Amino acid sequence: MSRFLSSRLSALEAYTPGEQPQDMAYIKLNTNESPFPPSPGVLAALNGQEAARLNLYPDPAGAGLVERLAQHYGVNPENVFLGNGSDEILSFAFMAFCDGERHVAFPDISYGFYPVYAQLYGIPAQVIPLAEDLSIRAEDYCGLQKNIVIANPNAPTGLCLTRSEIERILRTNPGYVVLVDEAYVDFGGESCAQLINRYDNLLVVQTYSKSRSMAGARLGFALGEKALIEDLNRIKFSINPYNINRLTLVAGEVALEEQDYYDARCKNIMENRTYATKELRRRGFFVTDSRANFLFARHPVLLGRELYSKLKKLGILIRHFNKPRISDYVRITVGTREQMDALLRAIDQLLA
Amino acid sequence: MSRFLSSRLSALEAYTPGEQPQDMAYIKLNTNESPFPPSPGVLAALNGQEAARLNLYPDPAGAGLVERLAQHYGVNPENVFLGNGSDEILSFAFMAFCDGERHVAFPDISYGFYPVYAQLYGIPAQVIPLAEDLSIRAEDYCGLQKNIVIANPNAPTGLCLTRSEIERILRTNPGYVVLVDEAYVDFGGESCAQLINRYDNLLVVQTYSKSRSMAGARLGFALGEKALIEDLNRIKFSINPYNINRLTLVAGEVALEEQDYYDARCKNIMENRTYATKELRRRGFFVTDSRANFLFARHPVLLGRELYSKLKKLGILIRHFNKPRISDYVRITVGTREQMDALLRAIDQLLA
Repeated sequence: MSRFLSSRLSALEAYTPGEQPQDMAYIKLNTNESPFPPSPGVLAALNGQEAARLNLYPDPAGAGLVERLAQHYGVNPENVFLGNGSDEILSFAFMAFCDGERHVAFPDISYGFYPVYAQLYGIPAQVIPLAEDLSIRAEDYCGLQKNIVIANPNAPTGLCLTRSEIERILRTNPGYVVLVDEAYVDFGGESCAQLINRYDNLLVVQTYSKSRSMAGARLGFALGEKALIEDLNRIKFSINPYNINRLTLVAGEVALEEQDYYDARCKNIMENRTYATKELRRRGFFVTDSRANFLFARHPVLLGRELYSKLKKLGILIRHFNKPRISDYVRITVGTREQMDALLRAIDQLLA
Repeated sequence: MSRFLSSRLSALEAYTPGEQPQDMAYIKLNTNESPFPPSPGVLAALNGQEAARLNLYPDPAGAGLVERLAQHYGVNPENVFLGNGSDEILSFAFMAFCDGERHVAFPDISYGFYPVYAQLYGIPAQVIPLAEDLSIRAEDYCGLQKNIVIANPNAPTGLCLTRSEIERILRTNPGYVVLVDEAYVDFGGESCAQLINRYDNLLVVQTYSKSRSMAGARLGFALGEKALIEDLNRIKFSINPYNINRLTLVAGEVALEEQDYYDARCKNIMENRTYATKELRRRGFFVTDSRANFLFARHPVLLGRELYSKLKKLGILIRHFNKPRISDYVRITVGTREQMDALLRAIDQLLA
């Protein structure tokens, strides 16, 4: 910390992203990336003419991609916001809609960035415990009179609320924004995207980082009522109007033309999830019923930190959170069948 | 504005970037982009293997690029910070170092984003008028006891402070950060990059958007003492750790291996600047002695707004700022010799 840092930030604890080790090739099951490259058309587009135009700024409105996303989700372009990854959108939303009067609420076990944003912007946060079975209880969020942030499916548990449960939360908090973070929705959750015209307080946030194999391209988007999107744009145009590079804008458009490619990969991931869940349970693990591209699991003997460390030595990276309630668990990205088999062999070796 | 927007932001006036019209092909001299594509090695690298790895997150530390930039500027990796364009870095710096106690000062005529950041973060700003000749007077910034932001060369005037003038400002404000925004320094300014080990309150911000032909890739960087860089990283890791995409990280590295390419293009731009300045003056324009890749000019009859509008009709985009003191001026990006000749022909047509 320098002697110049604002005192308001001196206690700020930044988010710790999953390891991205550069030292050796791991089987990387720690940051919920897709194991598959982007679709052929995306690769072709990136290898095309756009690179030679990098001397020019991107379209700050991203009009082409906004138009395509609107078509894809059956909404209007005015309902779509683009971000440099969904993290940027979450940050803008906390900044736009929360303050000392308009507080925020989120679960105790969820995406670790939510409390960081609350701390960064000085927003009082109500942290609501998950139920004993690690599920989010919709009734805990009804009539809160606070902005609400819910990951659905939730991370790292993989568990979902139904669309009608989200609707109850929306209806009982009409004066506040309900942000539904659908980073993992394409792996079997119920999206609320179709509800944005019915609830003016609903903001749905999605990402290209998971189901669309583009974590490295940085692209997220939000769907919501026109006025909510205008607010996010006001923040964006007050921070970094050219927030998305030209190549990513092109990749994002082309990917939407190849939905079959991504649907097939999601289906494969879901099959591998079923397989790995069953195999882990056979080995004595408790595993949640994940609807995401990761598993949340606990072994009765090989507890969280130890399992993580031992697997890392065997060249397999998974994620451990040293947090109350979940420190015995690990989160394991669902990769290819081969990656899952390598994981299971390594676990068998550790349990032998 | 939605009914959910924080009242603290209701009066926020976002920055207005230069037009990026998608309707027709203009000779685009309005946003200070390079007229040249990125260097051949950059294009080859983008057309290579990296696209197929977009399913994986980028290295949040950007260690490879940080290392290369450190070598390039003769500093240590701990002195380098990377941003999604230099705008993001400016935003992080305002957030990190300014608050209700630690105010900020900048010139009245400068990059239009500085007052937006001050307003966004609720930072009291002292706005210091330029001298009559549009220069920044160093003495106005000595002993201010405020954080100071100076674009050098300044935009849109193109005028510079000398390195020793900046040093006076640094020495007389030892308790505050002096941010020197060197977006345009490669076109003939004196960089302060070499001073960062001498002044722990100096933050130098540069960009790949101008001299390195990569406005569309979004890449900026800051150089400063280790603790300042740590502060910026604390903000980044509290907002968006993966702020730069994989392709841009690779492009940024490769560009540093091809400095000759960029030096030659900068030299060409500076020659075209000399040529266009002389030709505009022959036509009765007042033109500042710009050290940037743009001209700041005023015609005695064809005043700012009118000149902008008439040139746009002729297919040439330049920038007009409807602001006190400079509304009679226009800012014209220095492009290729052919673009400058097209501009001069159009002006001759308007003056005929």
